[in-house]
Amino acid sequence: MALADLQTVVRNDVGIAAVLGILKQRFGDRFQTGHAIREQHAHTTTYIPSQLPDGVAFAQSTADVQAIVQVCGEHRVPVIPFGTGTSLEGHVNAPGGGISIDMMQMDKVLAVHAEDLDCTVEAGVTREALNTHLRDTGLFFPIDPGANASLGGMTSTRASGTNAVRYGTMRENVLSLKAVMPDGRVVTTAKRARKSSAGYDLTRLLVGSEGTLGVITEITLKLYGIPQAISGGVCPFPSVEAACNAVIMTIQMGVPVARIELINSLGMRGINNYSKLGFAETPCLFVEFHGTDEGVREQAETFGEIAAEHGGGPFSWTEVAEERAKLWKARHDAYWAGLTLRPGCTSLSTDVCVPISRLAQCITETEEDIARAGLIAPIVGHVGDGNFHVLVLMDPANAQEIEATEAFVARLNMRAIGMEGTCTGEHGVGQGKIAFLPHELGPGVDYMRAIKTALDPHGIMNPGKVLPNAIM
Amino acid sequence: MALADLQTVVRNDVGIAAVLGILKQRFGDRFQTGHAIREQHAHTTTYIPSQLPDGVAFAQSTADVQAIVQVCGEHRVPVIPFGTGTSLEGHVNAPGGGISIDMMQMDKVLAVHAEDLDCTVEAGVTREALNTHLRDTGLFFPIDPGANASLGGMTSTRASGTNAVRYGTMRENVLSLKAVMPDGRVVTTAKRARKSSAGYDLTRLLVGSEGTLGVITEITLKLYGIPQAISGGVCPFPSVEAACNAVIMTIQMGVPVARIELINSLGMRGINNYSKLGFAETPCLFVEFHGTDEGVREQAETFGEIAAEHGGGPFSWTEVAEERAKLWKARHDAYWAGLTLRPGCTSLSTDVCVPISRLAQCITETEEDIARAGLIAPIVGHVGDGNFHVLVLMDPANAQEIEATEAFVARLNMRAIGMEGTCTGEHGVGQGKIAFLPHELGPGVDYMRAIKTALDPHGIMNPGKVLPNAIM
Repeated sequence: MALADLQTVVRNDVGIAAVLGILKQRFGDRFQTGHAIREQHAHTTTYIPSQLPDGVAFAQSTADVQAIVQVCGEHRVPVIPFGTGTSLEGHVNAPGGGISIDMMQMDKVLAVHAEDLDCTVEAGVTREALNTHLRDTGLFFPIDPGANASLGGMTSTRASGTNAVRYGTMRENVLSLKAVMPDGRVVTTAKRARKSSAGYDLTRLLVGSEGTLGVITEITLKLYGIPQAISGGVCPFPSVEAACNAVIMTIQMGVPVARIELINSLGMRGINNYSKLGFAETPCLFVEFHGTDEGVREQAETFGEIAAEHGGGPFSWTEVAEERAKLWKARHDAYWAGLTLRPGCTSLSTDVCVPISRLAQCITETEEDIARAGLIAPIVGHVGDGNFHVLVLMDPANAQEIEATEAFVARLNMRAIGMEGTCTGEHGVGQGKIAFLPHELGPGVDYMRAIKTALDPHGIMNPGKVLPNAIM
Repeated sequence: MALADLQTVVRNDVGIAAVLGILKQRFGDRFQTGHAIREQHAHTTTYIPSQLPDGVAFAQSTADVQAIVQVCGEHRVPVIPFGTGTSLEGHVNAPGGGISIDMMQMDKVLAVHAEDLDCTVEAGVTREALNTHLRDTGLFFPIDPGANASLGGMTSTRASGTNAVRYGTMRENVLSLKAVMPDGRVVTTAKRARKSSAGYDLTRLLVGSEGTLGVITEITLKLYGIPQAISGGVCPFPSVEAACNAVIMTIQMGVPVARIELINSLGMRGINNYSKLGFAETPCLFVEFHGTDEGVREQAETFGEIAAEHGGGPFSWTEVAEERAKLWKARHDAYWAGLTLRPGCTSLSTDVCVPISRLAQCITETEEDIARAGLIAPIVGHVGDGNFHVLVLMDPANAQEIEATEAFVARLNMRAIGMEGTCTGEHGVGQGKIAFLPHELGPGVDYMRAIKTALDPHGIMNPGKVLPNAIM
């Protein structure tokens, strides 16, 4: 089936017209229908074409969201939650039109329970805003997907990033959440206890549901003590395989590495270009260790020995904050650095994740595939989790190149699935990966659809995402 | 509504008669209907009366389970999965009769992927059998609920235990699972990657579903490297509050404690009786640290300082394996030790879990409640998670005492819920806690029921558990 068919959502013009009138009356200036604002709320950060919502409502409370969902539910009109718009698979598109709910005015940190190492935030709080708020508490929220995303959006896509290897993903770090469900009622999915066996795990069901089962309005998150000491550094390797083997041994020896990131040769060239640095242009691991002064020194030394055993090194590391910051800025700028490799290009980021034992093979085969396909595409990876990104740099005017990229991405996703991995480690399915979900999970997709239909019988919640023809 | 009403399951005599004939023919000696074997499969380890299944099928493969579920589905007959029978809330009872599926012959470790730190097991493998199998790999599976439970049962109840504070619960440690769903199809909920954003989290939906959404037949579990060094010890405190505050500070300072267990004064008396030991009979913390030689020494020293700051000590700790084993045997025998406090008694174990900031208050109020109610009930707790057990020792012949215990348990569960906690941290809902779930989760229970109905429209999967009147 063609991708377009998988995403078909029938437009309900009559219902939409009714809802536009009601919401304008209810929300005044906090409801906008201008083209520019609608376009901004369907900007997908991908090459997937924008599909504009019919209006944008700016919610300031769970009650606002509830009102919008109730009106839309009554008139069978789609609801699409919107955070910072940094998701990568067309999650914010409105294939059947409808109402985009902008969550960014729900930006309050509602509570910090320092003794319990948790906090409750509104969905529009960004991860950087939360960490700024926490500054004087000695605590921090570690999940870092790169973008300064909203915590609601990160919850919705089950985001993770560079330090998931130590701190887990949003799956492990959301204790509870509040959501407006498709029937317009508000549910709190769990109490604030660290663990629970009280019935089905509604929290985990909503984490990663990409706005298709409910609109998340509040989230209770785990926090962590800021480590006493942090060390980190960069280590070059002769090959991707050597680097991956060093990662496997590091993890197997129980070194509690906080970040361990691979950048391949082309990626390192981009970083050198962009950040005016002089790293070796061979595969490199960027690593970081958290702990006590003694602990981080011990960890760094152990890692250095492991790297040397695999032909890597020299491993230069530091405990000096400024030097580390420079290092991680270079890593975090890998996206922009990648773009410098092909001025004027547009890009697409993949995010397959495989068991770590298959990682070297998967990356190596992917590098060969890139070369064969004649694409320019650096690779960066959260290799401690077996997750890596290929940043394909495309000429947006070249239809043939876009087609070649799509074919490459399909091969990459199927390669990962064939290696007992997933087509998406952290970006989510959205529109872009709908076609791959049945290959990955087979009948699991039917049970997902049964759940979707049970909770959202009229298919108003972010239709055309995650599941093939979810509202058929 | 009375508890009995919440659990009503209508018996389908015609369907059951048909299924008994078919399964006898299909399974021969592997299908049993004798009273003794049916009674053994409804032994609930609680004071909840046994409700016997009509037959017990001994499954040896996923295909066996599939055959049983298909036959039972066709004839609308309940299916109740059975592991080691050590669950604590009447999970294995058959209130509407039906077929118990004994999973214990599915006892193969199917794969150990040492490089990926994971393994795949059949549901009947016990945690001790798995760790014996792993002995020469340098890896282990940490989750330890006390009983040598089957990994299928532990997955079904979202079990945890003493070292969840460091390693998490079954929720965090199941990567993927295979289940026979109510429609008789087999689903694998996820690939083997460490993380994934591929659609709804079916893995976490089935973890903790207590056999009500499907029968789990295989589980892929995370493994961990056996720590290079382990240290542990016991530390007395002047009060429960002092001990809890020491726990809070330990966790907040980021000491990666592997176990931190509280036993109250009465519990310590039981342990001294039973294990012929001479511990102080005041609230004690049993702690254990995992890491490098240097690391565990550092952790133990830090903990000792924290304990002293809170009036605790002396903290005597050791790195000698035999001494630690003796210590943890005493802790693990706390259940049996408790029973010695009242010879001839039967017991009931609660498992509320609250945010750690409320733990001291919750335990203190509960101790007062126990005294007022005239009950004998030592307390042991996985206090790093805010989870504690009250072991109520009852005279089984004394109806008044059983009533007083039920009333006490209800107050305890509501107290925990009132403190933003849960009525069940790790045992599950089963039959015993059905009445409390709506108090804890409100409309969440409706969404659970919608999911249950969508996946199991005829209510054949372990009916009368988790949800009030799930098959009404």
